[in-house]
Amino acid sequence: MTLPQTEGRNRVIIEGITPQVDGGRFAIKRSVGDLVRVEADIFTDGHDSVAAALLVHREGSAQWTEIPMEPLVNDRWTASFRVKDLGRYGYKVHAWVDHFATWRRDLQKRIAAQTDTRVDYLIGADMIEAAAGRATVEPDAHWLNDCAAALRAEATPIELRPIATTAQLEHLMLRYPDRRYTTESSRELPVTVDPVRARFSSWYEFFPRSTGASADVHGTFADAEKMLPYVAEMGFNVVYLPPIHPIGHKFRKGKNNNPQAEPGDCGSPWAIGSAEGGHKAIHSQLGTRESFGHFIAAARDLKLSVALDIAFQVAPDHPYVAQHENWFKKRPDGTIQYAENPPKKYQDIYPIDFESTDWKGLWEELKSVFTYWIDEGVTIFRVDNPHTKAFPFWEWAIGEIKREHPEVLFLSEAFTRPKVMYRLAKIGFSQSYTYFPWRNDKEGLIEYLTETSQTDVREYFRPNQWPNTPDILTEFLQTGGRAAFMVRHMLASTLGANYGIYGPAFELQEHVPIREGSEEYLNSEKYEIRNWDLEKGTSLRPLIAKVNAIRNENPALQNDWSLRFHYTDNPELLCYSKESEDRSNLLLMVVNLDVHYTQSGFVTLPLVDLGLPEDAPYDLEDLLTGRTYQWTGPRNYVELHPSHLPGHILRIQPRPAAQVSTVTVV
Amino acid sequence: MTLPQTEGRNRVIIEGITPQVDGGRFAIKRSVGDLVRVEADIFTDGHDSVAAALLVHREGSAQWTEIPMEPLVNDRWTASFRVKDLGRYGYKVHAWVDHFATWRRDLQKRIAAQTDTRVDYLIGADMIEAAAGRATVEPDAHWLNDCAAALRAEATPIELRPIATTAQLEHLMLRYPDRRYTTESSRELPVTVDPVRARFSSWYEFFPRSTGASADVHGTFADAEKMLPYVAEMGFNVVYLPPIHPIGHKFRKGKNNNPQAEPGDCGSPWAIGSAEGGHKAIHSQLGTRESFGHFIAAARDLKLSVALDIAFQVAPDHPYVAQHENWFKKRPDGTIQYAENPPKKYQDIYPIDFESTDWKGLWEELKSVFTYWIDEGVTIFRVDNPHTKAFPFWEWAIGEIKREHPEVLFLSEAFTRPKVMYRLAKIGFSQSYTYFPWRNDKEGLIEYLTETSQTDVREYFRPNQWPNTPDILTEFLQTGGRAAFMVRHMLASTLGANYGIYGPAFELQEHVPIREGSEEYLNSEKYEIRNWDLEKGTSLRPLIAKVNAIRNENPALQNDWSLRFHYTDNPELLCYSKESEDRSNLLLMVVNLDVHYTQSGFVTLPLVDLGLPEDAPYDLEDLLTGRTYQWTGPRNYVELHPSHLPGHILRIQPRPAAQVSTVTVV
Repeated sequence: MTLPQTEGRNRVIIEGITPQVDGGRFAIKRSVGDLVRVEADIFTDGHDSVAAALLVHREGSAQWTEIPMEPLVNDRWTASFRVKDLGRYGYKVHAWVDHFATWRRDLQKRIAAQTDTRVDYLIGADMIEAAAGRATVEPDAHWLNDCAAALRAEATPIELRPIATTAQLEHLMLRYPDRRYTTESSRELPVTVDPVRARFSSWYEFFPRSTGASADVHGTFADAEKMLPYVAEMGFNVVYLPPIHPIGHKFRKGKNNNPQAEPGDCGSPWAIGSAEGGHKAIHSQLGTRESFGHFIAAARDLKLSVALDIAFQVAPDHPYVAQHENWFKKRPDGTIQYAENPPKKYQDIYPIDFESTDWKGLWEELKSVFTYWIDEGVTIFRVDNPHTKAFPFWEWAIGEIKREHPEVLFLSEAFTRPKVMYRLAKIGFSQSYTYFPWRNDKEGLIEYLTETSQTDVREYFRPNQWPNTPDILTEFLQTGGRAAFMVRHMLASTLGANYGIYGPAFELQEHVPIREGSEEYLNSEKYEIRNWDLEKGTSLRPLIAKVNAIRNENPALQNDWSLRFHYTDNPELLCYSKESEDRSNLLLMVVNLDVHYTQSGFVTLPLVDLGLPEDAPYDLEDLLTGRTYQWTGPRNYVELHPSHLPGHILRIQPRPAAQVSTVTVV
Repeated sequence: MTLPQTEGRNRVIIEGITPQVDGGRFAIKRSVGDLVRVEADIFTDGHDSVAAALLVHREGSAQWTEIPMEPLVNDRWTASFRVKDLGRYGYKVHAWVDHFATWRRDLQKRIAAQTDTRVDYLIGADMIEAAAGRATVEPDAHWLNDCAAALRAEATPIELRPIATTAQLEHLMLRYPDRRYTTESSRELPVTVDPVRARFSSWYEFFPRSTGASADVHGTFADAEKMLPYVAEMGFNVVYLPPIHPIGHKFRKGKNNNPQAEPGDCGSPWAIGSAEGGHKAIHSQLGTRESFGHFIAAARDLKLSVALDIAFQVAPDHPYVAQHENWFKKRPDGTIQYAENPPKKYQDIYPIDFESTDWKGLWEELKSVFTYWIDEGVTIFRVDNPHTKAFPFWEWAIGEIKREHPEVLFLSEAFTRPKVMYRLAKIGFSQSYTYFPWRNDKEGLIEYLTETSQTDVREYFRPNQWPNTPDILTEFLQTGGRAAFMVRHMLASTLGANYGIYGPAFELQEHVPIREGSEEYLNSEKYEIRNWDLEKGTSLRPLIAKVNAIRNENPALQNDWSLRFHYTDNPELLCYSKESEDRSNLLLMVVNLDVHYTQSGFVTLPLVDLGLPEDAPYDLEDLLTGRTYQWTGPRNYVELHPSHLPGHILRIQPRPAAQVSTVTVV
């Protein structure tokens, strides 16, 4: 016969709180300035009115900001807040029975039916007097006590009615509610607030060693620095470098992944570590700590963030191997286990054994790799194959690092099974590579982008879309010619607020695979130094610069969540819109997915949903060409020629900014 | 720099476990003998194989039963168990990296590519030797050690291959897995196991006071006992009685809810309590503890369970009012607050105040009402308006009662908003009234029944479908004539495994409302004694008996979850099927929703899903008429006449029982 230890009179139920990830086990993600719209099912037994508040604080702080919740329909309530600062927030919901609201509601009914009695007013007077006792300001207490006294005076219901129904009374009673029996939602729900760049970023990846005077000359950070204006002028804001550490000599791979390196072959930057040093060292041919610092500073001057590649694997000559033998798997013959995908062997790479008896020492050391580079000025890390390292390590390491450095971002390079990719996002990765490279048809694009932008997945998984990478030269790019590169760039950059390209291979349309059926490049930069002709006439540089400028000027393209696909009557025409939070900036994209033929058809827009006039024409400006159009009604004609431009980016006539719902800045 | 206190080498992730209700906050519900099919997303980093087990126990027991989980697709795993006993079970998932499975898989690939080396076998030998150390049976340890030694012998890979790939080795390695680094799912998930009657029940409600010789004579339990064979012969298995307690005299309502009772008016059984006693007393005109006990015993002999109505509200003369004044709300004028729905007043009823300072005393007393009647032999309670009493009370009371009496069932009579109804089910009510009375068209029926039988709702919410109750005479029944009663009975009893009728009003087609637009009966039994002519020629008794017999003989109709709707080309024809767990019993229902006109059309069956031949005819027997049909292909013609029968209950030719997946009885 055990009665609950807790208060049994907390009668309000709170359930179904959104957003939340796995019941609060993981944080939802936002960027600085973003809105968090919270909803919950809130109700009580019987017919009593309820009231509810959303409580928000900086994680760990004792100071909570309270935001009254408003009822929607079907027992659903909502309130919103805007996150102002980097770091972690927490939110929870409080709800309680509002006896005064019940009384007031019932009194209105009684007044309407003329069944109100003196006793009804006396009941109200008791509640008002109690509220006076809770008042924190003397004039309020005074006013409420006067009101209670007036309701208790000898008078008829008709005389008492106006006293009981003033707006001032309602206002003050809302200010001093009776919250003795308050239900609190079961678990504080966490929010991670990242820099805006987590939501909106344009990445440019290049190999610094390929920036020398010729393919025979190993480029340095000083050479790479000269590349930065080229990247900045194209409108990118993140420069991402493959690993910059010393490259192993043992079992070094030659050009085109040849198992036998020739003398002079530069090796793969992902075969990390040599006598020169490991993950905290710089490959001497690239430069020094100082020249890397100079590179970062030069990038910063151009408003470019530098992203570093962190690949937790080692070459056989990495110092870890000698210093921490037990971080690697030993084979019965005394050798260390190299990487394998049987029957393939990768003797140039030793994977780290996360079941090491010294896992604590290992975790600390790997974490210190990040903090080392953070101290050197790096704020973004592209993490190589995080899915081949233990999940608990990532959750711990990212959590620890972001506690100290909430400005740091982590991009997960996991091209693997969906649940694995989503888990990495849940445990802390700020952005994630996606299946975008292999979504080339209309159906596939709509299905995948809808999943990532319109379902709960978006609360923790931020897609970063790449048409190519040094590992991925898709068949579409191999075979589709220049138009294929244009289309994939336009899709990556207008479907996703975060995107990137591996250049200059991309803008120069490098498209020959090492062999048919492979997605590896012929003469891949992973294994050799290349020299790129950046001024080549066929370069897509002008188009990329144009699109990036449009992205930078239009908030509609700086978020993922507003993406909506629209009907077209042609399977090769993909139509979608995006808009800014205040709805003043609305862009309509129409892309021709066919890289060979002109395609035309009608697009159908949901005018009401988009806030467009049903009975008047509206103007559209193609931001790529400057041409203007006037459309009328939902159905309009479009025609696109693949050799010319991949599609339209139409800005619909500017509209006044919508009133964004009142929010509280915490 | 805080490292986790827990083991960092538990590399396997377990998430998305189903079934679960609100993350394990509430129990899923099953009946004795039911299957629990558990699924979870299970994966680890990298390419290692994983293994997983479902662990089940009686709640609180230290003894766990382990069931190996099997992979499905996309990192989803499953295992099932069958619950044997009443009470509470708990389940959780364990998963670990299976290095031996990884080794074995990779070895197969190496053998195929002829790249296997002696070292590969030595690695296996180490694992096998370690397993020998874990063996709990000497011969197994011996065998494994021998095997390890054989793999370590001087021999070529070709010689070692057969030793490493025997089935016996795989078998023994599965028996002694290396589970040092095991991930456990975050929370034990609870299961409530109820009697089979929770899943399959046929309720008959009647007023015992209406079983006297005439409407002028107050019936007794002895009279009511004579009604039991009538009910049993109709095939019901639950007899439900409105409250049997003393009826209040103060503000007693007269016939047809007249605010002024005439002398001799019997009052409403829901106005509980008088000088005679309260919720633990018996209305003296009905009988005594002894005669009620006799009634229960007589019912039991007929395999009828007796369900009692528990309504936690009191008449002004209920003993609680004097003894526990603080269980009720006091008004400033010293009177007790009666029930209200402003401007309507119900002065004959005092609601209980769940914000009483003595809420602990109140909870204990209310719980003791149930235990009192359980001690008297009652095992089922129909709870009146549970949504007007505090949720925390129900969760506590039902939890406590079911801990002692897991055989007891609670039916929630809450006709209110959906989230409130579902919450009551989550916190413990075994069955629930539903919106079924007001779902009369095809679309509404399909939508609602799909929600309750095919979504997660079914894990905790068991619908009990009533075409009528003493409070609900729907417009459909008022205006549809005899056919309307037939249709609603057929729908209630074949759509839902749990259903009930309020009789004899139902079978005698009582259909006149107190006034137009009301769902209240004219001359309602709630306020007066009625005398029913059970032998009336137009009674639906034979049809009801027939349908109940079909329900009792066909397991397909004894579950809700197998319900599937099928396409018909006529909006008045509703077609659906149900089948037994082993699929051997398959019934197809076709109902004419139009109570006025003959309707005909084609039904389309998904032959493959139903296990029916695509290229051969199949036989159907109408269990209502005994007529047989032979159909071919998916599309067949049906014609139904409302005056004759409401529909078909077609048993499709018996099929061999399917192999029900191997399950472990716990």
